[in-house]
Amino acid sequence: MFIAMNRFEIALGHEKDFEDVWRNRDSHLDGVPGFTGFKLLKGPSNDEFTLYASHSTWESRAAFEAWTESDAFRMAHSGANPRKGTYMGHPKLETFEAIL
Amino acid sequence: MFIAMNRFEIALGHEKDFEDVWRNRDSHLDGVPGFTGFKLLKGPSNDEFTLYASHSTWESRAAFEAWTESDAFRMAHSGANPRKGTYMGHPKLETFEAIL
Repeated sequence: MFIAMNRFEIALGHEKDFEDVWRNRDSHLDGVPGFTGFKLLKGPSNDEFTLYASHSTWESRAAFEAWTESDAFRMAHSGANPRKGTYMGHPKLETFEAIL
Repeated sequence: MFIAMNRFEIALGHEKDFEDVWRNRDSHLDGVPGFTGFKLLKGPSNDEFTLYASHSTWESRAAFEAWTESDAFRMAHSGANPRKGTYMGHPKLETFEAIL
């Protein structure tokens, strides 16, 4: 199993904006080959931001990479954005292979 | 759903030691109330370390927290440790609630 997590640092007070964007977007993931599941995760907060992570699971890294080059990926990322000031820096992608 | 991830920065060249500790340990997780799954994830490497994360899923934060105060938790964490020099700093726990 392969997991792709995109980490988002969301400025305090902007959490609802960020969640609404995800709540209302069409992920275009249904039926993507090798895609097995998606969750939006809310993590800890500090004095500046709340950490969120998108958490998608795939049969393999190859399936994930094929999706990132697909029309479905472009459509999923062409939608609405949250208000200015929501993001503290760029999202950070981390990918993992389940080894045990 | 609740996810607990413990992030480990493992010095380059120590990856096998670290994986062996996990491969050989008894997690004592089977039958723990509210526990739903465990994976050991291997993430990206940089010039200094390889990122790993333990990834356990739970029915709720309360179930996870009860486990951390249980005998099963103490037993799971009393086993062998990898060689000195394996860890770059302390593991960092991050916990998440699945909201979507």
